Amino acid sequence: MKNSQYALGVDLGGTNLKMALLDGEERIVARWSSPTSGVEGHDAILARMIGGIRELQTAAKGTVVGVGVGVPGMVDMAAGVTGDLPNLPGRWTGVPVAATLGDAVGLPVAVVNDGKTFALAEHRLGAARGSANALFVTVGTGIGGAIVADGRLIFGLGGASGEVGHLIVQPEGPRCTCGNFGCVETLASGPAIAAEAIRRVVQGFSTELATRCEGNLNAITPEFVALVAEAGDPAAIEILDRAGAWLGIALAGAVALVAPDVVVIGGGVAPAGSRYLRAAERTARAHSGVTEIDRIAFRTAALGYDAGVIGAALWGRESAQAGSQ
Amino acid sequence: MKNSQYALGVDLGGTNLKMALLDGEERIVARWSSPTSGVEGHDAILARMIGGIRELQTAAKGTVVGVGVGVPGMVDMAAGVTGDLPNLPGRWTGVPVAATLGDAVGLPVAVVNDGKTFALAEHRLGAARGSANALFVTVGTGIGGAIVADGRLIFGLGGASGEVGHLIVQPEGPRCTCGNFGCVETLASGPAIAAEAIRRVVQGFSTELATRCEGNLNAITPEFVALVAEAGDPAAIEILDRAGAWLGIALAGAVALVAPDVVVIGGGVAPAGSRYLRAAERTARAHSGVTEIDRIAFRTAALGYDAGVIGAALWGRESAQAGSQ
Repeated sequence: MKNSQYALGVDLGGTNLKMALLDGEERIVARWSSPTSGVEGHDAILARMIGGIRELQTAAKGTVVGVGVGVPGMVDMAAGVTGDLPNLPGRWTGVPVAATLGDAVGLPVAVVNDGKTFALAEHRLGAARGSANALFVTVGTGIGGAIVADGRLIFGLGGASGEVGHLIVQPEGPRCTCGNFGCVETLASGPAIAAEAIRRVVQGFSTELATRCEGNLNAITPEFVALVAEAGDPAAIEILDRAGAWLGIALAGAVALVAPDVVVIGGGVAPAGSRYLRAAERTARAHSGVTEIDRIAFRTAALGYDAGVIGAALWGRESAQAGSQ
Repeated sequence: MKNSQYALGVDLGGTNLKMALLDGEERIVARWSSPTSGVEGHDAILARMIGGIRELQTAAKGTVVGVGVGVPGMVDMAAGVTGDLPNLPGRWTGVPVAATLGDAVGLPVAVVNDGKTFALAEHRLGAARGSANALFVTVGTGIGGAIVADGRLIFGLGGASGEVGHLIVQPEGPRCTCGNFGCVETLASGPAIAAEAIRRVVQGFSTELATRCEGNLNAITPEFVALVAEAGDPAAIEILDRAGAWLGIALAGAVALVAPDVVVIGGGVAPAGSRYLRAAERTARAHSGVTEIDRIAFRTAALGYDAGVIGAALWGRESAQAGSQ
């Protein structure tokens, strides 16, 4: 049984470097983590990765067949070399992650975008289990995603598919970090929610957002807006409803293009049952005219923060098995 | 050699029923066609199909392994039963096309959406040949499309993937036939171009569109607008540029989601080198911030009106071969 083999997943994030050892039954049997913020450049982070992998290797009661590394940005998957990773300290373009780690720990290493690891984990073990066609969306600092079509995770040119956040829903809208205007990310991401709340405070709207932040704009986060909305503040409610509705407009288009049977929404901004998420689903359903929208389920991600390491481990195992055939 | 076998493709359109016999080297060796407009209902059309298939069978110098039928709308592919085909006379929901034809002609019959046959033909033999990731767009009465990802045509739930035309680019925009507002189809399809030209004439704009149509609004088609634009009329030029730009906005989003290496644009409204097509490509390139847009080729479809019958034949052959394994 090939899958009775251990695999190791690495989730390289802007805040933390997290790892997990997955056994043959897809259970996390050991964990390791270390902060990445404040760490100087890729060499220091790679050294920590090697230390963590070695530690987790000792925890395996069988063969570890491979390591998967999920990274927040572009990657040359065939070469295992990272491209631009804008949210990490240091310059990551051209770093041979797979070769460096592989030489040090003696295991095959596969590197992949972390939107794909999220999708892989949720598809195999989480909210999209058993689904043939799934659209995955993560809402956090940015809005990312991935697509499973006809049972297979799709990658696209350079592994870059799934960028739901850059569907353009308001061509004359706000400037996006990608350089364009009106990408849904500018209207529905975590920072978009915070920025709109800050705008209302700065422009003198009468809202609990202003009262409760006590003059400190730094206190205004998406979570803060959600708390103020729960307390009944109309401005906070409107901000979340409008942001969610913008996501819904983008999802209606993405659903028309991908025709999923399930839409899985994860990331810090979209906790289960939240007002934001309800607005997104309601709007997507109301604006889906061509696909059989009633057959499509909207679900929140099931694996929480573990999706990254689990998906990376699954990818590491599968890549190793494909490579040894 | 499995592919040295003949296959038969049927393209069921709102105007014509077209068929072709494809030999083992993917050459069209015989054709058959018949008008569908004015024909009463599905039974009459199925009877014509049977006649055409029988005629083409006699033209084959070897075994015909299967028949593929491309239809303009929804289809239950597993059952070979059509769903809603809004552009055809009669009510097509629930018609057992595969079983009816198969029983009559003694061949395996596979039914598929005609956006997929277009993509299959252009991917195997046309503008996207050799491409691993391709986005196909057809601009005509509506705007349709299809996706090849990692070398495979993707279908999605109910085979409904690829509906580029229902990406929402202007949420407060014009009402769409799908029931929503501001789908790109309302701003960039053939009828959208004609309707905007008619609006300008009706509202008394000073334009050659008004002069040349000689008071007959029925003369205003997308082709008419293109001709008037070629003659230098600023209004006609603006209409085509704006419609093309709207398509480009949608394509920028679709490219972010799909990450294709080639975008193939076909359909009657987008002839090679046209002003509309140039505006679409220019806008898509200018609005693609996340994908490596410089690596993406934009091409016009290569097979013209034959794509439908060729793709249907390829699908018929492959479905028959898959079924006999």
